[in-house]
Amino acid sequence: MNETAKRIVSGVGIGAVVIFALSYDVYGWIFPFCLVAVFALLGLYEFQVLTDRGLDGSAFRKTAFVFSVLILLAFYARFLTIKDPEALHQSELHVLLRTWFYPAATNLVPLLMIALLVASSALQILSRPLDGAIYSISVTVSGVFYTTIGVGYALLLYALPAGLFYLILFALIPISSDTGAYFAGRWFGRHNAGLKVSPRKTWEGYIGGVVLSVLVVNGFLYGWTEYARSQDWPLPNIAMLEISLLGVIMSFVSVIGDLAESAFKRDAKIKDSAQTIPGHGGILDLADALFFAFPVGYFYLVLRQVAGFTLV
Amino acid sequence: MNETAKRIVSGVGIGAVVIFALSYDVYGWIFPFCLVAVFALLGLYEFQVLTDRGLDGSAFRKTAFVFSVLILLAFYARFLTIKDPEALHQSELHVLLRTWFYPAATNLVPLLMIALLVASSALQILSRPLDGAIYSISVTVSGVFYTTIGVGYALLLYALPAGLFYLILFALIPISSDTGAYFAGRWFGRHNAGLKVSPRKTWEGYIGGVVLSVLVVNGFLYGWTEYARSQDWPLPNIAMLEISLLGVIMSFVSVIGDLAESAFKRDAKIKDSAQTIPGHGGILDLADALFFAFPVGYFYLVLRQVAGFTLV
Repeated sequence: MNETAKRIVSGVGIGAVVIFALSYDVYGWIFPFCLVAVFALLGLYEFQVLTDRGLDGSAFRKTAFVFSVLILLAFYARFLTIKDPEALHQSELHVLLRTWFYPAATNLVPLLMIALLVASSALQILSRPLDGAIYSISVTVSGVFYTTIGVGYALLLYALPAGLFYLILFALIPISSDTGAYFAGRWFGRHNAGLKVSPRKTWEGYIGGVVLSVLVVNGFLYGWTEYARSQDWPLPNIAMLEISLLGVIMSFVSVIGDLAESAFKRDAKIKDSAQTIPGHGGILDLADALFFAFPVGYFYLVLRQVAGFTLV
Repeated sequence: MNETAKRIVSGVGIGAVVIFALSYDVYGWIFPFCLVAVFALLGLYEFQVLTDRGLDGSAFRKTAFVFSVLILLAFYARFLTIKDPEALHQSELHVLLRTWFYPAATNLVPLLMIALLVASSALQILSRPLDGAIYSISVTVSGVFYTTIGVGYALLLYALPAGLFYLILFALIPISSDTGAYFAGRWFGRHNAGLKVSPRKTWEGYIGGVVLSVLVVNGFLYGWTEYARSQDWPLPNIAMLEISLLGVIMSFVSVIGDLAESAFKRDAKIKDSAQTIPGHGGILDLADALFFAFPVGYFYLVLRQVAGFTLV
């Protein structure tokens, strides 16, 4: 099987797992939580391998994992509160989780990040040589930040009334952007974009990515609205002009996410972040753009509320 | 004037400015906000100088400053909402700030941090060579994190009904811990603690720091309670046993904060973080322990609520 075929098969396989996980509400939406946790922790592991410089510094791996799980629980507790405020369909364990990880509607994420900073400083002081202190502590904190908070907002998106719509929307844009760039670059590519991190990419490619994104989001909005109306689901209150603008912005963000991961790999002098997924490389290679797309998309929706739109 | 005298004079001077800033409510408590902003931005500047490795990587300074200010505004908007929920005594500008920086009671801090990660990735890709990408992006993000969020929680502490009590409490512990360690180390120091970052410190010194912290917090609790009762202020609902325990924990945290900053400086091979404050060095040298003490103390108070205590 060649690389492209492997890529398509494993891509479809992962898509099927994701759709399955989002379709069934078992034990307080445990599947979406597990899915997010798998992406975050595998991504974090790959980031730690990528940034390991041996004696020159490396992340505090176990501590980072513990805090990644705690932060995911803080996101999950918020998710549970939004999905089912009265906890009518939740177990005692879920209620306990909400009490401790979303106390009095306080977002524990910044506090847990500070606790991680304190813990990794303590470990640095007690167990490592002096050289590389800044590097080790910084990559511990920023690795958890990049992977865990990146996907944590996927859960919060999913908790919105039209959450599935936005979740698919923000996942479709990086895929369309990538695909559009690939074909536009091959067919029309003339003017090199001159980025050191990705020297063969052309301006025509990037423009193709933006164009395909705008087309796909409009097609998706149309299809979803029709289907949601027939199923009596909440309709996303977003117009063609706005979703086109969002397609442009998010296409740009997903290119940044993609190139940032390439920059990390080139800085570390490796090709793929791992060999977890046949044809794709590692989780970071597959999901690099999503780590940026979900939180930035969520941020957009939050600011949109201020402008008078309800968060549907 | 010798170093110790300089240290005392400038320490008292700064103390006077802080007390003045906290005493008057002018234009929506603008003084405490400015004070916090000065600490955060000077600390961030020193951190950026400290972590600058030239061609091997350095923080994206201007972008970090912009995001530091945005994050401070998010803290300030929350502070304003807690202090005066109905905005009865606030200007239109304050109300606008609350609408945009604390929209629907959403904590924007994690989202702004992600936006900083996206922005510094974009800058790295567009304007810098490939080597040092991981270092540059990581120190940009963790620098803002360390300094801005560190002091941001000081504002939220101050917004509590007995906020001034906790603010002074969490500032007193590092000072007592430091002073106790200095004298106990001089008088009783026999057994070297063996930490590479601070090779002359002894176990007796650290124990002395903890002991003085416990004594000082109890003395402060007693004095404050008496005075608050006479002035009809809200009384802090914390008992001797709990405040002693808190003294021990926070003394440990402040030692970590102090040593972490030493580790950064030794890693960077410099002695003082700057020469801003006569006798002390830089803001980071003066306030290193506070960057950890305020958020960890706030975290403690949040978790304390879950155990049934009201946040007074």
